Amino acid sequence: MYLGIDIGGTSFKAGLLDDSFQIVDMATCPADRSPQDYGDYLAREMASLTDTLLSRNNAGDKVSYVGAGIPGFVDPAAGQIMFTPNLPLKDVPICSLFQRYSSLPLLIGNDANCAALGEYHAGSGKDASSMLLLTLGTGVGSGFISEGKLYTGWNGAAVEAGHMLLVMDGRPCGCGRKGCFEAYGSATALIHDAQEAMGKDPDSLLWKTAGGSLDGVTGKSVLEAKRLGDATAEAVWRNYLHCLAQGIINAINVFQPELVCIGGGISNAGEEDLLIPLQRSIEGHTMAQGSPKQPRLRKACLGNDAGIIGAALLGLS
Amino acid sequence: MYLGIDIGGTSFKAGLLDDSFQIVDMATCPADRSPQDYGDYLAREMASLTDTLLSRNNAGDKVSYVGAGIPGFVDPAAGQIMFTPNLPLKDVPICSLFQRYSSLPLLIGNDANCAALGEYHAGSGKDASSMLLLTLGTGVGSGFISEGKLYTGWNGAAVEAGHMLLVMDGRPCGCGRKGCFEAYGSATALIHDAQEAMGKDPDSLLWKTAGGSLDGVTGKSVLEAKRLGDATAEAVWRNYLHCLAQGIINAINVFQPELVCIGGGISNAGEEDLLIPLQRSIEGHTMAQGSPKQPRLRKACLGNDAGIIGAALLGLS
Repeated sequence: MYLGIDIGGTSFKAGLLDDSFQIVDMATCPADRSPQDYGDYLAREMASLTDTLLSRNNAGDKVSYVGAGIPGFVDPAAGQIMFTPNLPLKDVPICSLFQRYSSLPLLIGNDANCAALGEYHAGSGKDASSMLLLTLGTGVGSGFISEGKLYTGWNGAAVEAGHMLLVMDGRPCGCGRKGCFEAYGSATALIHDAQEAMGKDPDSLLWKTAGGSLDGVTGKSVLEAKRLGDATAEAVWRNYLHCLAQGIINAINVFQPELVCIGGGISNAGEEDLLIPLQRSIEGHTMAQGSPKQPRLRKACLGNDAGIIGAALLGLS
Repeated sequence: MYLGIDIGGTSFKAGLLDDSFQIVDMATCPADRSPQDYGDYLAREMASLTDTLLSRNNAGDKVSYVGAGIPGFVDPAAGQIMFTPNLPLKDVPICSLFQRYSSLPLLIGNDANCAALGEYHAGSGKDASSMLLLTLGTGVGSGFISEGKLYTGWNGAAVEAGHMLLVMDGRPCGCGRKGCFEAYGSATALIHDAQEAMGKDPDSLLWKTAGGSLDGVTGKSVLEAKRLGDATAEAVWRNYLHCLAQGIINAINVFQPELVCIGGGISNAGEEDLLIPLQRSIEGHTMAQGSPKQPRLRKACLGNDAGIIGAALLGLS
């Protein structure tokens, strides 16, 4: 069996997996943000979630390590959390802190990397030799696995495909640069584009599907207006797909994976509106022309469980 | 000992390496472009170069395979040349053709990947666990090695870091896309920029260092004018460095290698004008902030031998 914990900004979610990588039990706790020694607090809470799951399932001797997905920059080899933007963790030797409260070793990974590992072993990537996951949500997350091995780079910070440029000196990105893929390919970017277009077109159905307010815009409301035939929404979506396609071609040219797996909220747009037009835009434009081995696109299938499952499977990598 | 062959558009160069990866003998032949069955011709010529080197050095029993660097898209696993832009080779099963003329197995790699492998094992990357080579010449070539293993992707076409975008819908690139790093970061791009700037400034020293003609512009002539204090040349070079820095940050965000090795004609610009300002532009802008493990830049040191040496060492990967 395997045990993984997904550390989020608002809660910590632990899952126990059977040997076919299915979650058989879960335990969660809210993320209290007040503790002074946050590393120690996190280690203690993770050990407590671990104990709960192991004792509740009589699985104390069936799990050989705990895996944790951390929402930030980690150095897995050093067992160190370098920095997390949404939790007060900086230069925290979390793996050794965990030993204060548990006899099991702790492995850590970046949360997007864990989600990729989950999809690779237990989700949409099960039949692929190599897979790049792109999660299109608040940001653009990514993780890459080749022949069973998660690629994290020399310092642990790879792979940040969302932080390759699309537009040099373009839109400001949260990372401090200008023009990153994330600033054009995330759900946040789509919403921003739609809001801008609504400002110029008071008659657009984008207003209706957003409930009459700019604050009501979501990826879903943009797609609804597009499906109703609204020209402004169609233009916003078309431009968004163009940006996505360019970012995906960039990533393919670098990784040439067997599979590009698309996750995050935007992936729910479905085949017709998302995957089919993207696949069409990509074909004929990567650097592997003439090869029978053309990377395919596929929707991620594990949803929010990917992170827990991937964290639990960090020991396989 | 090892034997590698660098297949170029004008000549084929073979080298015999001793066990410390030094070239001890070389043999070359011109690339005749007339043969109808070019795959068979290439196989025969490579076998002939191999025989020459082995017999001349009494090394027949000291070499266990031949490696070849091919200037195009290859599938190393399939032993197949998919396509070469400058030689008439398309879907050629070169490794099996080679067996018609030699009893040694043939391994193949893309020429930029071979150059990277050469620098990694025998050049500037000798002390690095992972290394990305970027060659700044006619185009922008690249190759990536991590823990001794050359990364070529599922279909063999990785890693083409020169074909990530810098500017969406920007300058046309030879690959068919618009705005690739190669279209801004190659020596060709620098020369193009300088020529454009010369058109606007008839008094620029760029004219003098290029011998009075647009056709005389080289990377070296641009640098000479810049070193003479010419403001137009300085602006061209500064803009070129900005593009290089952005492309390198993109690549670092994806690979997070220990070392980024810079090769090709532009790498001769030296520390002061190239590596130091690039390192300064990169620091603080990658996704590994706060880590003591910051990727370093270094000049490639093997020059044109890198391809032969890397081809010879394909079997180590």
